[in-house]
Amino acid sequence: MNTREFSHVSPDNQVNMVDVSAKASTARSARAEARIDLPDEVITLLQNRELHLPKGPVFQTAILAGIMGAKKTADLIPLCHTLPIDGVKVHIELHKNTAIITTEAKTVGKTGVEMEALTAASVAALTIYDMCKGMSHDITIHSIRLLEKTGGKSDFKRHA
Amino acid sequence: MNTREFSHVSPDNQVNMVDVSAKASTARSARAEARIDLPDEVITLLQNRELHLPKGPVFQTAILAGIMGAKKTADLIPLCHTLPIDGVKVHIELHKNTAIITTEAKTVGKTGVEMEALTAASVAALTIYDMCKGMSHDITIHSIRLLEKTGGKSDFKRHA
Amino acid sequence: MNTREFSHVSPDNQVNMVDVSAKASTARSARAEARIDLPDEVITLLQNRELHLPKGPVFQTAILAGIMGAKKTADLIPLCHTLPIDGVKVHIELHKNTAIITTEAKTVGKTGVEMEALTAASVAALTIYDMCKGMSHDITIHSIRLLEKTGGKSDFKRHA
Amino acid sequence: MNTREFSHVSPDNQVNMVDVSAKASTARSARAEARIDLPDEVITLLQNRELHLPKGPVFQTAILAGIMGAKKTADLIPLCHTLPIDGVKVHIELHKNTAIITTEAKTVGKTGVEMEALTAASVAALTIYDMCKGMSHDITIHSIRLLEKTGGKSDFKRHA
Amino acid sequence: MNTREFSHVSPDNQVNMVDVSAKASTARSARAEARIDLPDEVITLLQNRELHLPKGPVFQTAILAGIMGAKKTADLIPLCHTLPIDGVKVHIELHKNTAIITTEAKTVGKTGVEMEALTAASVAALTIYDMCKGMSHDITIHSIRLLEKTGGKSDFKRHA
Amino acid sequence: MNTREFSHVSPDNQVNMVDVSAKASTARSARAEARIDLPDEVITLLQNRELHLPKGPVFQTAILAGIMGAKKTADLIPLCHTLPIDGVKVHIELHKNTAIITTEAKTVGKTGVEMEALTAASVAALTIYDMCKGMSHDITIHSIRLLEKTGGKSDFKRHA
Repeated sequence: MNTREFSHVSPDNQVNMVDVSAKASTARSARAEARIDLPDEVITLLQNRELHLPKGPVFQTAILAGIMGAKKTADLIPLCHTLPIDGVKVHIELHKNTAIITTEAKTVGKTGVEMEALTAASVAALTIYDMCKGMSHDITIHSIRLLEKTGGKSDFKRHA
Repeated sequence: MNTREFSHVSPDNQVNMVDVSAKASTARSARAEARIDLPDEVITLLQNRELHLPKGPVFQTAILAGIMGAKKTADLIPLCHTLPIDGVKVHIELHKNTAIITTEAKTVGKTGVEMEALTAASVAALTIYDMCKGMSHDITIHSIRLLEKTGGKSDFKRHA
Repeated sequence: MNTREFSHVSPDNQVNMVDVSAKASTARSARAEARIDLPDEVITLLQNRELHLPKGPVFQTAILAGIMGAKKTADLIPLCHTLPIDGVKVHIELHKNTAIITTEAKTVGKTGVEMEALTAASVAALTIYDMCKGMSHDITIHSIRLLEKTGGKSDFKRHA
Repeated sequence: MNTREFSHVSPDNQVNMVDVSAKASTARSARAEARIDLPDEVITLLQNRELHLPKGPVFQTAILAGIMGAKKTADLIPLCHTLPIDGVKVHIELHKNTAIITTEAKTVGKTGVEMEALTAASVAALTIYDMCKGMSHDITIHSIRLLEKTGGKSDFKRHA
Repeated sequence: MNTREFSHVSPDNQVNMVDVSAKASTARSARAEARIDLPDEVITLLQNRELHLPKGPVFQTAILAGIMGAKKTADLIPLCHTLPIDGVKVHIELHKNTAIITTEAKTVGKTGVEMEALTAASVAALTIYDMCKGMSHDITIHSIRLLEKTGGKSDFKRHA
Repeated sequence: MNTREFSHVSPDNQVNMVDVSAKASTARSARAEARIDLPDEVITLLQNRELHLPKGPVFQTAILAGIMGAKKTADLIPLCHTLPIDGVKVHIELHKNTAIITTEAKTVGKTGVEMEALTAASVAALTIYDMCKGMSHDITIHSIRLLEKTGGKSDFKRHA
């Protein structure tokens, strides 16, 4: 029997921000990722200028944009609850032509932080796009997905 | 000869918001897409409740989130210029298990609206995720990419 | 004896955001309404195009704007405290020429959610205005008022 | 023949932010009002403490909130275009038990500033509510309406 | 032995928003100041028009801007945690040619409110600058510093 | 004869956002600075960990915060006009115990970008404070002032 339901849509198909006032606050975490494929010419220039390093300006800017983006989740996603975010980490690594962004968000709250982790990953990827778009538009963002969550009704962990 | 360069990174590898004050304003447009794969159980429930229709609450909410997200682009992407957006369209269609989001943004300005179109697509996709996540986390957002742009130094059109 | 006082104004007539740090968090709710009178020509066109239905794009957009507006209350009202909103509902019904918007906001916090419920109602009404203004400016928003509140020093319920 | 239409709703009933990129920028202005009825006990205390004066902290705060609210119009109203606001005035006068708020907004742009003037009036009224709500919830905001607009396809002036 | 460390920078020199999810919420306060030096011509005009008074429009606007600025701290400072602010006070006094701004912020939370108090002071000072800049740019903001904090790992009080 | 006046305050001492709709747009620039004094222990640790370099995470974060802060100027300063910012640069150099932040903002608009340059400098300084506050609160931000402006009624250049 499947009792799972659409978040935010009432039985008569109206949108609403679900009432969680009766729920207890619990410790919650979520990890997500996004990947961005860059063409050879961008990779070459990144390497020539040592911009491919984690601490170079391209990835540093993307990391900060991701962290700040996590704090704006409830402003971007219409039916998201506002959450006191207790921590956000954004990590970026270049594997061949793909920058792999992994994020982690934590809170002690009544709802999960999946959207915060996913938003951080998405905004970081868009920021890399923005910084590389002067050279090529042959860029694709993909694999935006949840890797793991803990602390709600049920935990989740993606199989590798 | 390749004179293309990283937007927003100076020759000495410092970030900055490029000075476009001397550029003329021209009419510009950009079209982008994002795709989101949903598992069977979500598709079945969408169809059972007639939520798969373009005017159902899930896609309507995503469309509005995408339009509002486009207006927040310069707030999300650290080095983006603020632009007066002259129009945004977001269209969503379900093909089998994939919701295909296509967006279009227009401006008369000094910089392109690629990031606005890409941000609209990303935020619409994240909103669909948020509304379906109560049923499954077996959801992936992918294919966030530019389809076409007009009005800048060079036009761009992705080959099908 | 009336000991009630102006919120946010000190005895020497200076504004401030009242210190509530010593107050305990309690469950609180507030319901509010706003009404918007539309002229015949707008009502006729709404009905001809089936836009008068609760799930049509005009009212759906207003409902979402109201929910998102509630989350911006502390950003709009200078001396409002930021609150973790636990739920917001916006309902719209058309009675003859009047769209009646009723809202409900909930929190577990140190201050009430009256302003959140009233802001949701006001922003939903302004959004209906925005969507109908192409046809007429013979539109008036009125009856923005609190219907009920629970959970603070004293409950309130408006007499019908 | 009536060719007027819903702003922001396409012929197939989908919402969108209308494309105004081909329109010329023209000077535009809009004046709006909002009224707020306050009970006797609030009026008495306002007068006892000289808070009823235009320069007292209650009305000053509301004036500033209205001006800042006008700048947030496109963030609040989902399908509003972002506009460079060239000026906003908010004026408040107490007539017996009613505070009458009149606002004026100006731009040189492609769309009108009606929503900016109406939003300024609404936010100023909500701010007065917020500052008086510690004494009474017998407060109603009403008469939010456009008084005059110039500069678009057609001017408008409300008959007294 | 000094075990103090840079907030927000990991041992491998990467930025992140520190994970505070395991910390307990405690009552915290912070007091800060900012000073702004104004030239004689501005002081004279302030006095001639009675704008130098705490309740005049220049300082009132700065006080409100400071309070609202405190609520935006986590949006301005990239690695700041979002905090439920329980109270903010901004006080401004003119001593000869210097306006002295003192602020106080309070919360019950996992991190301190130093940045909120400092941001309130800075935004209030920038607002005074904005209102006086039509007369002179011979204006300097200085002495932005923490005066006192309570409630974290260690209290702090600046020696006079 | 001095005809200079308070920006944003009307002859009857009411605040307003000045009407600039009749002014022509002209190219404008502004340069500002802020300085922040850091104690020896912070300087030592910055140097030990190579964080004192312009491209280290402390200054990089501050530079990005300054650029993003410039885009929020009209949201922070109540009576500031919204401006399309055409470029922002933030530069930080450490001289002994003082980090010197210089900023430059450009626009083609009806009002100057002084406040944008000053806000960028202030937010960058506050961000450095935030990143160093774990080690010491013996930190002071000072010398926030305009260095130069061009393009308005009169140019300005501060004497060294």
